Amino acid sequence: MVYSEEVLVMETAVDDMNSEFFPYLVDRLLEAGALDAYLQPIIMKKGRPGTMLTVLAREDRQDVLLKIIYSETSTLGVRLRTERRICLHRDFLTAQTDYGAVRVKLALEEPGEQPLRYAPEFEDCRARAQEHSVPVQSVYRAAMLAVEDSLKNSK
Amino acid sequence: MVYSEEVLVMETAVDDMNSEFFPYLVDRLLEAGALDAYLQPIIMKKGRPGTMLTVLAREDRQDVLLKIIYSETSTLGVRLRTERRICLHRDFLTAQTDYGAVRVKLALEEPGEQPLRYAPEFEDCRARAQEHSVPVQSVYRAAMLAVEDSLKNSK
Amino acid sequence: MVYSEEVLVMETAVDDMNSEFFPYLVDRLLEAGALDAYLQPIIMKKGRPGTMLTVLAREDRQDVLLKIIYSETSTLGVRLRTERRICLHRDFLTAQTDYGAVRVKLALEEPGEQPLRYAPEFEDCRARAQEHSVPVQSVYRAAMLAVEDSLKNSK
Amino acid sequence: MVYSEEVLVMETAVDDMNSEFFPYLVDRLLEAGALDAYLQPIIMKKGRPGTMLTVLAREDRQDVLLKIIYSETSTLGVRLRTERRICLHRDFLTAQTDYGAVRVKLALEEPGEQPLRYAPEFEDCRARAQEHSVPVQSVYRAAMLAVEDSLKNSK
Amino acid sequence: MVYSEEVLVMETAVDDMNSEFFPYLVDRLLEAGALDAYLQPIIMKKGRPGTMLTVLAREDRQDVLLKIIYSETSTLGVRLRTERRICLHRDFLTAQTDYGAVRVKLALEEPGEQPLRYAPEFEDCRARAQEHSVPVQSVYRAAMLAVEDSLKNSK
Amino acid sequence: MVYSEEVLVMETAVDDMNSEFFPYLVDRLLEAGALDAYLQPIIMKKGRPGTMLTVLAREDRQDVLLKIIYSETSTLGVRLRTERRICLHRDFLTAQTDYGAVRVKLALEEPGEQPLRYAPEFEDCRARAQEHSVPVQSVYRAAMLAVEDSLKNSK
Repeated sequence: MVYSEEVLVMETAVDDMNSEFFPYLVDRLLEAGALDAYLQPIIMKKGRPGTMLTVLAREDRQDVLLKIIYSETSTLGVRLRTERRICLHRDFLTAQTDYGAVRVKLALEEPGEQPLRYAPEFEDCRARAQEHSVPVQSVYRAAMLAVEDSLKNSK
Repeated sequence: MVYSEEVLVMETAVDDMNSEFFPYLVDRLLEAGALDAYLQPIIMKKGRPGTMLTVLAREDRQDVLLKIIYSETSTLGVRLRTERRICLHRDFLTAQTDYGAVRVKLALEEPGEQPLRYAPEFEDCRARAQEHSVPVQSVYRAAMLAVEDSLKNSK
Repeated sequence: MVYSEEVLVMETAVDDMNSEFFPYLVDRLLEAGALDAYLQPIIMKKGRPGTMLTVLAREDRQDVLLKIIYSETSTLGVRLRTERRICLHRDFLTAQTDYGAVRVKLALEEPGEQPLRYAPEFEDCRARAQEHSVPVQSVYRAAMLAVEDSLKNSK
Repeated sequence: MVYSEEVLVMETAVDDMNSEFFPYLVDRLLEAGALDAYLQPIIMKKGRPGTMLTVLAREDRQDVLLKIIYSETSTLGVRLRTERRICLHRDFLTAQTDYGAVRVKLALEEPGEQPLRYAPEFEDCRARAQEHSVPVQSVYRAAMLAVEDSLKNSK
Repeated sequence: MVYSEEVLVMETAVDDMNSEFFPYLVDRLLEAGALDAYLQPIIMKKGRPGTMLTVLAREDRQDVLLKIIYSETSTLGVRLRTERRICLHRDFLTAQTDYGAVRVKLALEEPGEQPLRYAPEFEDCRARAQEHSVPVQSVYRAAMLAVEDSLKNSK
Repeated sequence: MVYSEEVLVMETAVDDMNSEFFPYLVDRLLEAGALDAYLQPIIMKKGRPGTMLTVLAREDRQDVLLKIIYSETSTLGVRLRTERRICLHRDFLTAQTDYGAVRVKLALEEPGEQPLRYAPEFEDCRARAQEHSVPVQSVYRAAMLAVEDSLKNSK
């Protein structure tokens, strides 16, 4: 069965900041334990092109993450709400391809059962592609094929 | 009086999916009872251009819609929250134009009273425009005029 | 017949500027003779949320507008190209509505002929709406109706 | 210490409205007491480019703001939720620059202590820049420097 | 070898139109021979959320497409430029999957040689997925696998 | 005086690709000599959320960059045009701050003259900020102040 967890959603809209600072901010938030963080283009008052920051985290990360947001952005207020998140289980297997090993993330409704979906880890594909000077797509596809085979055989 | 209802809001951010799949996903969600569904461009971690999916539905549609999202996207987690929605009442009338009949949606604060606003149904305008090889705007405007007249006379 | 003119298109992508400055920049460019100016959200290198500025102008405005862009943004380079612009003729008439006079812009394929389309000037609608404390949409619609009538009678 | 308040978040997605009306809508909402209001580009059903309006307000502004949204947009339903907002304290000082006085907004964790950050008020910078025919950036920077100096001396 | 062709690029920014009309506009342009058409969210003067329409076409389609744009939008001017387009050759093969036949588009640097890339046609995947009540992703992946096999055997 | 150069602009719209691949693509293009590369969210036919890639380069980089685009994306055609780019001269100086050295980019209308503007290099600010565990903004501001001082003294 899929499982459910509480997740804290933090949002703030920023219109008066050098936008070079955003990717660093997102990196710092993820390093400090945010589950996810993303940016959306918005139009703020007076027609200003702004950026909405959204951060997902567990409740116990609230203070640490707020501190980073207040230090690294120009915002004066951050909105918080709690949401329920329904998740698939995840597992990993390693696919052996002609370009080397690639980890593949499995999405499962029930741990230990056949996966609903799977996707090669992008960073692994990128590393193998660079070692072999081939397109990332080639490695990605090879990893998909290898999983497909190993799942068929495991049935 | 306007009325109020509970509405379930489902959201998930997707960065590792072929974006051809999104319009089909939105269609399937609407067919399965979603009240609305829309997409927003976002910037996800590592600078990836991603897409945020938002789905509005009544609570009893949660499982059916989650199943579609898990089948047709690459997401591993969907966030849920409940919101209150304040709605105007809606009614329809049929406007007779030189191009044929066009349904017009009325927005009313109180059922049976004069409408606050009205808008010709786009699909009807499109159909009439194609039958007569005229711009959709011409049909739309003709329908607006016809309503305006009929509302004046009904006062 | 529609007519054609040469138009200079200036573009620059900005990622290191406080975005409060953009609306002022756009205002200054329009005051200095730009035909149009608009902003687009983009994702720049390293995943930075940036803004693309596009300015349309006649060739003789190039130096003045470049100077403003260099003074008011953080850009180091502006790209230029020349395009042809195919235009409809425009004319104005004044619609008399219950809320007062509203100028209406006509789009014509041929000067002096029946307009292809027309649209009430937004700023006039806004002014009349504020004077009468009614929605802008009411004034807009009243102006459309008044034009429709006056065009019918002039046929 | 930072402080916390309840804030009402109102949202509605609009796909069938002339987009000239949006800035006026945002202005009216702010005048009527909204704490903030912004717009996001979205893709609505059938591939329509739409606009999501978000309004932040205190609870007691709900009815007034809803009335404006229903009058000035084409929406039939507005979603509401309540969120907690964690805020820095704000204070103002006036910076004396070569271009004249500029108000500067201070962000403080604790009232009366050293500010965490500060930012010149854009509208003041714009006014001084226009009086002196200099780039806004020059005034902005001069105000930053003046604050920096006065804060050093006050330590 | 890849080949090169001249392509006409038509652009116009629209801020005063009901955005329901855009998908119909795009459909009509494609039916009338446009090679491609797409929309971008922009911020126009006075902070208006607008839409930039871009249409690609061969030169001989200019008049027909302009006529559609002038009929179905509110624009007064369309910008034109000519660009060179460098193209891969395309070919199709039909993949036999457990869900039925799916056409697959091949991208080739040289006609008759091994393809550089290939991608199942989305509409075929959608049709097969609906016939079998499976996720589109399953059909897509099955088609990829079938091509992979047939290309290996043809070597 | 500002100087002018020819620049090749390459554009392609992509709707059928896993968007995880884009940041890697942009990195590869920049490493292979592109002057700049950025992404824009667009709405493609059938309502698909797509991504427009724009690459700026000198003419002699065309073949290398095209090869990367064809290898790493799913596109079948890339559009090319040549534009003139008007550039400010750039120079660098090193600002000594309490956090260490930060390179600062100067923008000059005339080499050797007073700069029109200057901006601390973000990567340097980030490095110093991490060494000292302070907000990037603090380092950025310190670098601005140091430049301001050194420019005043050099007058």
